[in-house]
Amino acid sequence: MPGNTFGQLFRLTTFGESHGAGIGGIIDGCPAGLELDLGAIQGELDRRRPGSTPLGTSRDETDLVEYLSGILVVPHPSAPSVQPGAELEEQVHEEVVMTLGTPIAFLIRNRDARSRDYDQLQHVYRPGHADRTWEQKYGIRDHRGGGRSSARETASRVVGGAIARQLLLRDGIQVNAFVSAVGEVVLEREHHDMDLTELWNDPVRCPHKATSKRMAARIEAARDAGDSVGGVVSCMVRGLPAGLGEPVFDKLDAELARAMLSINATKGFQIGSGFRAATMRGSEHNDPISNETAGGTNSGGTLGGISTGGELHFDVAFKPPATIAKAQRTMNTSGEEVTLEAKGRHDPCVVPRAVPIVEAMACLVLADHLLRQRVARV
Amino acid sequence: MPGNTFGQLFRLTTFGESHGAGIGGIIDGCPAGLELDLGAIQGELDRRRPGSTPLGTSRDETDLVEYLSGILVVPHPSAPSVQPGAELEEQVHEEVVMTLGTPIAFLIRNRDARSRDYDQLQHVYRPGHADRTWEQKYGIRDHRGGGRSSARETASRVVGGAIARQLLLRDGIQVNAFVSAVGEVVLEREHHDMDLTELWNDPVRCPHKATSKRMAARIEAARDAGDSVGGVVSCMVRGLPAGLGEPVFDKLDAELARAMLSINATKGFQIGSGFRAATMRGSEHNDPISNETAGGTNSGGTLGGISTGGELHFDVAFKPPATIAKAQRTMNTSGEEVTLEAKGRHDPCVVPRAVPIVEAMACLVLADHLLRQRVARV
Amino acid sequence: MPGNTFGQLFRLTTFGESHGAGIGGIIDGCPAGLELDLGAIQGELDRRRPGSTPLGTSRDETDLVEYLSGILVVPHPSAPSVQPGAELEEQVHEEVVMTLGTPIAFLIRNRDARSRDYDQLQHVYRPGHADRTWEQKYGIRDHRGGGRSSARETASRVVGGAIARQLLLRDGIQVNAFVSAVGEVVLEREHHDMDLTELWNDPVRCPHKATSKRMAARIEAARDAGDSVGGVVSCMVRGLPAGLGEPVFDKLDAELARAMLSINATKGFQIGSGFRAATMRGSEHNDPISNETAGGTNSGGTLGGISTGGELHFDVAFKPPATIAKAQRTMNTSGEEVTLEAKGRHDPCVVPRAVPIVEAMACLVLADHLLRQRVARV
Amino acid sequence: MPGNTFGQLFRLTTFGESHGAGIGGIIDGCPAGLELDLGAIQGELDRRRPGSTPLGTSRDETDLVEYLSGILVVPHPSAPSVQPGAELEEQVHEEVVMTLGTPIAFLIRNRDARSRDYDQLQHVYRPGHADRTWEQKYGIRDHRGGGRSSARETASRVVGGAIARQLLLRDGIQVNAFVSAVGEVVLEREHHDMDLTELWNDPVRCPHKATSKRMAARIEAARDAGDSVGGVVSCMVRGLPAGLGEPVFDKLDAELARAMLSINATKGFQIGSGFRAATMRGSEHNDPISNETAGGTNSGGTLGGISTGGELHFDVAFKPPATIAKAQRTMNTSGEEVTLEAKGRHDPCVVPRAVPIVEAMACLVLADHLLRQRVARV
Repeated sequence: MPGNTFGQLFRLTTFGESHGAGIGGIIDGCPAGLELDLGAIQGELDRRRPGSTPLGTSRDETDLVEYLSGILVVPHPSAPSVQPGAELEEQVHEEVVMTLGTPIAFLIRNRDARSRDYDQLQHVYRPGHADRTWEQKYGIRDHRGGGRSSARETASRVVGGAIARQLLLRDGIQVNAFVSAVGEVVLEREHHDMDLTELWNDPVRCPHKATSKRMAARIEAARDAGDSVGGVVSCMVRGLPAGLGEPVFDKLDAELARAMLSINATKGFQIGSGFRAATMRGSEHNDPISNETAGGTNSGGTLGGISTGGELHFDVAFKPPATIAKAQRTMNTSGEEVTLEAKGRHDPCVVPRAVPIVEAMACLVLADHLLRQRVARV
Repeated sequence: MPGNTFGQLFRLTTFGESHGAGIGGIIDGCPAGLELDLGAIQGELDRRRPGSTPLGTSRDETDLVEYLSGILVVPHPSAPSVQPGAELEEQVHEEVVMTLGTPIAFLIRNRDARSRDYDQLQHVYRPGHADRTWEQKYGIRDHRGGGRSSARETASRVVGGAIARQLLLRDGIQVNAFVSAVGEVVLEREHHDMDLTELWNDPVRCPHKATSKRMAARIEAARDAGDSVGGVVSCMVRGLPAGLGEPVFDKLDAELARAMLSINATKGFQIGSGFRAATMRGSEHNDPISNETAGGTNSGGTLGGISTGGELHFDVAFKPPATIAKAQRTMNTSGEEVTLEAKGRHDPCVVPRAVPIVEAMACLVLADHLLRQRVARV
Repeated sequence: MPGNTFGQLFRLTTFGESHGAGIGGIIDGCPAGLELDLGAIQGELDRRRPGSTPLGTSRDETDLVEYLSGILVVPHPSAPSVQPGAELEEQVHEEVVMTLGTPIAFLIRNRDARSRDYDQLQHVYRPGHADRTWEQKYGIRDHRGGGRSSARETASRVVGGAIARQLLLRDGIQVNAFVSAVGEVVLEREHHDMDLTELWNDPVRCPHKATSKRMAARIEAARDAGDSVGGVVSCMVRGLPAGLGEPVFDKLDAELARAMLSINATKGFQIGSGFRAATMRGSEHNDPISNETAGGTNSGGTLGGISTGGELHFDVAFKPPATIAKAQRTMNTSGEEVTLEAKGRHDPCVVPRAVPIVEAMACLVLADHLLRQRVARV
Repeated sequence: MPGNTFGQLFRLTTFGESHGAGIGGIIDGCPAGLELDLGAIQGELDRRRPGSTPLGTSRDETDLVEYLSGILVVPHPSAPSVQPGAELEEQVHEEVVMTLGTPIAFLIRNRDARSRDYDQLQHVYRPGHADRTWEQKYGIRDHRGGGRSSARETASRVVGGAIARQLLLRDGIQVNAFVSAVGEVVLEREHHDMDLTELWNDPVRCPHKATSKRMAARIEAARDAGDSVGGVVSCMVRGLPAGLGEPVFDKLDAELARAMLSINATKGFQIGSGFRAATMRGSEHNDPISNETAGGTNSGGTLGGISTGGELHFDVAFKPPATIAKAQRTMNTSGEEVTLEAKGRHDPCVVPRAVPIVEAMACLVLADHLLRQRVARV
């Protein structure tokens, strides 16, 4: 059964292989009448592209979103009727892009797809990649650049998440992710609650300058060693109303966990106290309930799978990128053991570029549950 | 939108409050012609009831499953035609219970539901519980015993999972969970791969005797202190074929993560290397691919969200139970701050009883994906 | 893939074979805080039971609905606080049944299930019934009384529809079906718009006395001949707001068509002008749009799959019941041709008893779309 | 909740307005390894375009399908390895297009979109169209050419259906629709079972020459009168195995009914005997079961919602096109009554062009249920 759709009411379906015509998606269920800031969407997409930080690969693909449907340019609702003699430029400012309530389809063309580079990989299974499992599943696979298992697929998620975010912002809900660990370099818990306004200017996407510098050094060391390193992305949601999340199988935590583990290279998810909860006592773990505190740091912002109205806080573990310069033992499609040496430059650490993807998936979950809550009561 | 259904093709919908008429569910999508061992299902259910281990509460509810539909007693397929003069008892052995392909509905009546005990809680929000969030969501709640947010709901999951397991066993897929941490007492990683045949005789559900004893002592200490303690349940799946899991949003890891975080009191999920991956180098993390090794300990049994054919391995973190004997500060429904002292005996640690629930949810995920794989190729 | 669930947001899943423990269902997605009139639900169920009209079979099964979950008896919102010395009976009037927002599970026990009567049918395929197709699909079937293909399954739909209706009535939406044809006896189109208050006192469920008498005679004639006769049920919906229905695949007409064709023994559906539209000219078919007329008779109450705000009007064709007293040629499970003579009394015409089922399915569709419309706009 | 997706396992989601960038869709769930004949798909699309029959409008839009993902050009499985010196043309024959198991996205660009033509319609509600209901639903609408309620949307369905058909053809399942009525001109029932090989050469898409001529005359008469006329499309499915369809809500008939009523301008659906069943006796309606006859004309190819293995036969009623040359009374968006006179040439009868759309929707339903049947048994 197809697994390329995410969400129930705010629903994103993605398509596309990394080296076909392009990638993209359809957002179905975005309510009609939402004013869209297309520039902001493109801005979010720019943050995840390989060249967005000096710590990534040097490959530069400026992905441009083309909208195929679901939106309409209309006069600004509050605009005075356009004067016949007015300048064109002025009039442009009087128009806005609105959603129609119909599917919003978008396309990002693949460019610079040097498929030839991947010819060597047609008959070799890369360790840590999905090459072999993909073939075991389907009996056929697009070997060029990982096909649909490529991280390039996540660009479509960023577009979908950016639109979801614009729905959330109407209600004052703010979703912010950041890098909280690279290898052994960890951002202290008390520093998670920081000012994030300068985040996108930081090459590691870590809000604490000193820690960021140590993280950057750790990434450079991995690169120099022809190796890679893992990390953790954390996410804070502020302004979330109480009551979101469905109490049994579709708990808000469960939906976030699924969303995060669906991102390439993730190995774990925890909310609030997370795995530390295993070592805690109940008297220590229970967040007190009072008029001042809506949530609490241990719950992470949900109780019984439903948002408390307090700050939501979760962490996502990423493995070190599987593609490394070092020689590795593996197999080819004929079942022979071979040695693989990856060519070209590769990302030594995925977490800086994963930050916008974590945000996007969180936005998709929250927008879905914001709509779902509309039918919870008579 | 309703969130009481789990799975796409093998689908469980549960119902029931802890103090209403009963709890139960419907399994829709169980293939026709599956021979069911009803005794085995009841046996799994017995393992999660409060009195199943001396470390739980003393409340003893023997939950009996009543099947309402979807199964039929038929002569054993390979049985010789029944002889007219044969004894009745012999003939019984010649019959089996088969699934009809129609919804399997089941009911577990609530017994001994002393709702009066909960009168004191009608107007108080218990810290660490879903009382307040539930009310914020729906504007109404069944305060008796937590209503549907009670862990009692998981009994329905165990029945569903037990039926899913019988589908998995036909293909030789074995799902086994066990307790791997209680507080600071941790089962060493190298001991995860143990003989689990005696697991249900161990009060902690930990396969390593010495560790189990230390865990039991930790639980008793929490009980004596009127407090509670958290823990970790780990799960191993053996015999899983390669190719299960959908590669984008419905990755096998993502589905397992959602399943686990939908269990009450869970705070985290990790697969394979999990959060340790964040501190690892790629050259160390990549499991080598060879003819001998199907999977690898770091991947945890999936690559790109698809099963490798190797052992699946994941961990689930549980918080300490929220109900403790110690006095706690909280609020009542009028917004006044009050002190709450819980009465009666309560579970000081949830993980021993959570083991069959983790297994059940894993079985549900895997049975669903076993069926989903049937439509992946022409 | 399971097909026992109906609806997206207001969702009914049914279970049960006609001769197992019982039938029933789960309604998931009914909003919290809906005040339920349980007596009205039982009343609707009574209307479809075999003995409800003298024209049906004499078999009398009083089906009693047992609620297993999802509702709570609470003090009436506007009730004065109960006086200590008040009589019990008075206090009862001060309480109401409210939905909790959780799954509403219900059970109707099978009684008087004379399975032995069906032993003769274990190895014979009845013409016009699903015996053979069921076996071709699943390889196994419950031959007793048609198992789950029995019309008894529709009792669960009536319960689900009755709850959906209580949601609709809050918004003033009224759903009324009636018999508009039995064999060649047809209720004239201009009589469809009649007073329906006395409908349930009419044995045929036809609102026009003279036509009803002719229909009754037609049914009696079929019974006397050991034969059966078909008919048409029509349905009017008043008070429906404009804007319901999703414009592409989930058009309101499409959803109603599916709902109706999912009822046993139906062969056709038409809305508004229906098949007569094929012979009409556009200038004659287009309903004029004006301030006075919201809809129009030809559109039947939808345009582009969306409700116009006018009266909804559709017809459903039912075949003559397949079980007749006359001898019929058929096959047994060994592939031999045999003659079948049905024993006992059977319904010579299904439409009088189908009226509440058509209403129930219409209510389920409309309640679902009433909720779906809540997320159509920002 | 979004309603732009059709199907459960073989799933089509469409997007696009008639005057935006383009229309298209995503097919998710097409099994991997299906060899696709792209020329055949384009051929089916050509059959529904306005200029495909002299009886349609003269507007000629050659819609070209662009595939964005999900397919791969691979060497023909049985091809000898390509010889170095072989001609290019020869080599082309040695390649085939295969599905990857991933979403197949496709795009049909809008061309010649003279949006200006629709300026007059911005503030007028056309009778018989969805202009007003659309606005009532969403509060915003794309007035250009009907936006997404335009019949142009069905081109995406034809592409989806054509791919579904290639899955069906592997199993020898043939789906053929044809025009069976235009106004009062009706193709006799005994002529439905005709040779359909020449169908696409007939301007009316009616397989019976004499009837086709009378139908063509009826359409021309409507055109000359500045009016339009309705009709009926019938569909036969041959080679369908027994056992398809889910027995309760997702009966094969119910799914087909929904599929057909989701097509623009349809008013009714009937299967087998259809509305004639209402006037029949049971002894006459029951198809005899024998070794020779798999199905029967009255059942229409299903019993209990499951395919019998016999020929499937159903009819779909279409209303006369709403756009006519004659002046009509209507309203504008300010609530004033106005007179509308449509400009340009319009289709006087929709049924010839509806034939490929009916086929496409039938193929989508059947492909979905063909896959669903794979999980019905252990």
